[in-house]
Amino acid sequence: MRILITGAAGFLGSHLCDHLLKDGHEVIGMDNFVTGSPDNIAHLADNDNFSFYRRDVSEYIFVPGKVDAILHFASPASPNPQSKSGYFNLPIQTMKAGALGTHNCLGLARAQNARFLLASTSEIYGDPEVHPQVETYTGNVDPIGTRAVYDEAKRFAESLTMAYHRSHNVNTSIVRIFNTYGPRLDLEDGRALPNMIKQALLGQPLTVYGDGSQTRSFCYVDDLIDGIVKLLYSEEHFPVNMGNPHERTILQFAETINKVTGNTAGITYVDARSARDPQRRRPDITRAQTILNWEPKVSLEEGLLRSIPYFKQKLGLA
Amino acid sequence: MRILITGAAGFLGSHLCDHLLKDGHEVIGMDNFVTGSPDNIAHLADNDNFSFYRRDVSEYIFVPGKVDAILHFASPASPNPQSKSGYFNLPIQTMKAGALGTHNCLGLARAQNARFLLASTSEIYGDPEVHPQVETYTGNVDPIGTRAVYDEAKRFAESLTMAYHRSHNVNTSIVRIFNTYGPRLDLEDGRALPNMIKQALLGQPLTVYGDGSQTRSFCYVDDLIDGIVKLLYSEEHFPVNMGNPHERTILQFAETINKVTGNTAGITYVDARSARDPQRRRPDITRAQTILNWEPKVSLEEGLLRSIPYFKQKLGLA
Repeated sequence: MRILITGAAGFLGSHLCDHLLKDGHEVIGMDNFVTGSPDNIAHLADNDNFSFYRRDVSEYIFVPGKVDAILHFASPASPNPQSKSGYFNLPIQTMKAGALGTHNCLGLARAQNARFLLASTSEIYGDPEVHPQVETYTGNVDPIGTRAVYDEAKRFAESLTMAYHRSHNVNTSIVRIFNTYGPRLDLEDGRALPNMIKQALLGQPLTVYGDGSQTRSFCYVDDLIDGIVKLLYSEEHFPVNMGNPHERTILQFAETINKVTGNTAGITYVDARSARDPQRRRPDITRAQTILNWEPKVSLEEGLLRSIPYFKQKLGLA
Repeated sequence: MRILITGAAGFLGSHLCDHLLKDGHEVIGMDNFVTGSPDNIAHLADNDNFSFYRRDVSEYIFVPGKVDAILHFASPASPNPQSKSGYFNLPIQTMKAGALGTHNCLGLARAQNARFLLASTSEIYGDPEVHPQVETYTGNVDPIGTRAVYDEAKRFAESLTMAYHRSHNVNTSIVRIFNTYGPRLDLEDGRALPNMIKQALLGQPLTVYGDGSQTRSFCYVDDLIDGIVKLLYSEEHFPVNMGNPHERTILQFAETINKVTGNTAGITYVDARSARDPQRRRPDITRAQTILNWEPKVSLEEGLLRSIPYFKQKLGLA
């Protein structure tokens, strides 16, 4: 297949490029480098099956030649208010990537009779009141909250995707991605896991907000990419949750990270953040298991061991 | 003020034109007549303070000269699956009016330093689990449901409006409009009230789905328009519910309509619709009362009496 990937220079987009090239496809990457990094795709420069367009998908998405599949992964995704490339600091760009970008992708998918895959997110569930989250849960998102620029953009993108499927019979699919980690994850991403990995590698005590009893589930990137590619190859149209259903407390994550990295600086407890971070988030992956025969296989310890060389290099420690 | 109204040929848009012209403003109407009707603004043709552009607001919104305020009312809004101009039959146009149309309006408002008012809807609450609905309720909308083309478009429009306010300091406002009736309401709109009014005027028994115990609240259009104009003139930025908090059962509506119209054909009970119509919907209007000193004043009986001449004319009975 000839596959267009928007957000190709991002964390997930770049791993998708690698995987699909390895599967023998021709890959067209697209990114405007607002949140993605050229470093993430530099290794593909000499690959004859890879081409790249620097372009804002909210503006224009046309590429010459036949396209068989489009994976729309372009969007700011970091919830870190301090991050320049997080959606709090790029609110309108985030909404445009979700609405105008998705609209452009669906138009191209329709014109090319191509399979379309939307990168959606667990954030469409907002601050969930149902645990674990199943695909039929309608979520708890405040449309006028500051997080809504990401959450509502993705909800809109899902609705538009289904509208193109129902009205124009476009062959669409939607993956709702839960927390993921691995090489190329931005250490300034703002989520608990990269924060703590960075601190551990620098020999600092890990910051835990509150008492550390809030829970998270993190999926190793290779597992997630396997699932997304299975979804791409399938005929499924309705949303599929993908993430690691193994829920742990933040304190358990901290202890595992200190153990795996050999960090002896321990843990510092600080006041719970004022930011309305969800207290719990865990995917119900029954649909992915049933439809795609997919579930994560890489343990947290193994995933951390595989990620550490990249993070060390990024921190100038390797 | 020089005021641009999108959806000017619609039910609410045309009443807004009338009211704002009466208040001494210059009004620029815009509509593509996909759901609006030239009949609704025909009486304004000779008004020197009124001008009109036939245009799709999702495509292009620029108008020459200074604009002091923009009211974005363009969107399909009828939930009637049988209606050609309902959002079930215009799913992608509906999403474009909410996303691209709102984006165009906000861009113009920013460039012109104009007040912006978004017509949002009680539909952003979906099938509500909180009664009555307060503005802080986050709603119950399924992003991949068939109703989502309207609901998610409006939620996205609200998020984008707040993003422009927060990021670019645009002077924005949002009204969440609940069920409204009055002259120029499309009798094929699909909602219970126009359906029953039509049947009563034709001397037919009124159709009541299920046992008629589901409730609705309907606001007379003059009341609603008064509230919207008060919001326009205010400095409020956060969403304000507007509608009639007087909740009645569908059966009570049916009996009142039969009484006011002198219809003696009674009521026919049929099976509850399969469509996922909300069982209850009622605005909490405390914010509008507090901030704008607004509440509806026209009784159902009075509103029906004022509406009937229009509906009779439409049905060829006058």
